[in-house]
Amino acid sequence: MQRYFAKDDKLSLSELDKHHIINVMRMKKNDKIEIVYDEIVYLCNINSISKKDVSYEIIEKLDTNSELSKKVTIAVPLVSEKKLDFIFQKCTELGIHDFIIYKCERSKVRVNEKENRKIERWNLIAKEAAEQSFRNHIPNIYGIKDFDYLSNLDHDLKLVSSTKKVKKSIKNVLQNSTNYDRIIIVVGPEGGLTDSEENELLCSGYEAVTFGSAILRCETAPMFIMSAIKYELGE
Amino acid sequence: MQRYFAKDDKLSLSELDKHHIINVMRMKKNDKIEIVYDEIVYLCNINSISKKDVSYEIIEKLDTNSELSKKVTIAVPLVSEKKLDFIFQKCTELGIHDFIIYKCERSKVRVNEKENRKIERWNLIAKEAAEQSFRNHIPNIYGIKDFDYLSNLDHDLKLVSSTKKVKKSIKNVLQNSTNYDRIIIVVGPEGGLTDSEENELLCSGYEAVTFGSAILRCETAPMFIMSAIKYELGE
Repeated sequence: MQRYFAKDDKLSLSELDKHHIINVMRMKKNDKIEIVYDEIVYLCNINSISKKDVSYEIIEKLDTNSELSKKVTIAVPLVSEKKLDFIFQKCTELGIHDFIIYKCERSKVRVNEKENRKIERWNLIAKEAAEQSFRNHIPNIYGIKDFDYLSNLDHDLKLVSSTKKVKKSIKNVLQNSTNYDRIIIVVGPEGGLTDSEENELLCSGYEAVTFGSAILRCETAPMFIMSAIKYELGE
Repeated sequence: MQRYFAKDDKLSLSELDKHHIINVMRMKKNDKIEIVYDEIVYLCNINSISKKDVSYEIIEKLDTNSELSKKVTIAVPLVSEKKLDFIFQKCTELGIHDFIIYKCERSKVRVNEKENRKIERWNLIAKEAAEQSFRNHIPNIYGIKDFDYLSNLDHDLKLVSSTKKVKKSIKNVLQNSTNYDRIIIVVGPEGGLTDSEENELLCSGYEAVTFGSAILRCETAPMFIMSAIKYELGE
């Protein structure tokens, strides 16, 4: 069954989604699709379909939800577009709730005037990955934020991946933290956060954790942490 | 510190690695490199370097090992080259021991005469990822095997990811299995293994496990399982 996210409470679909139904999937009258709005899934029947438009009606509301029980935010540094594409797609499949892109001292990529167009493209990547993995929620992508923005967040559990010799492993922290709904993990850039950046986070309630002895690339660490949380939750 | 894998016990480096040292890293006399042979890391000093060659000598054997304590094999179906590139690179970073590529009924990709050249390329991807993540071991890539090959393997723990309603989660199995050295996990193609393929594995000692409620793409599942094992081992 194909799933699409609607634009509004009338379950309107984007032109891109209609094109997908009409020209890519080549659906026919009476084919079924799932349309999601406000995290609720509706089973719909296609009533008519032409080369330019498609109309459908709700058959029933489906009682289906594959979202993780905890809301996970990962804050990733501004790295190359290709790496971010990859992080957004894979972490969406693995159940992330939202992303923050932040600037930091060791970001090698500079922000330019195309910023908004990139965020638009990344939101589309997240939407498509959410549809393909039957999510009820499209992860939000917030960015591109100054580093200080991270200090002011009020998640229940706030972690920063540290390249220093910290004693607490991510496993240790997750297994001893059950009483949280929203968790944020800040993943550093290549070369890590600077000492002053890490200290700023530690002073505002973050806990430093290690992901193990291996050195993970900046684009691999978010996937590792999402997999670890999904595994730990057993969901 | 840059790490390279040697071709032989004289710590000879490939032409590609020499090119990397000379032209990419632009190293100089007395710069240090790490060279690995037979899973042992040697700290070496560059004695001389020209536009065409580099000579070095061992300073000391390093007592460093970032390998996981369990040897993990993942068997992946023959999917597109791009997806396999991605699987080999990311799982190598996450500590995999070796890969098997297998053919199955729902493989959409056909084997052709370029098979050997592809395996050579994939081995290079694994080597480079192993160097960058400071592994002692380059994962082997075995392939492209007929499906029956999987039935005859004798790993201590043999798992197959099932899309059917199996009750045992990967977490349940990993937490209750400590007494193993070598584990193999068979990840299915898009659409899953056929019933007869899954049954063939179950009859030869594999256990069916689920990765959770989300539907992971064929290229995401191996990364998820490697992350889960690394997390569970706490290494």
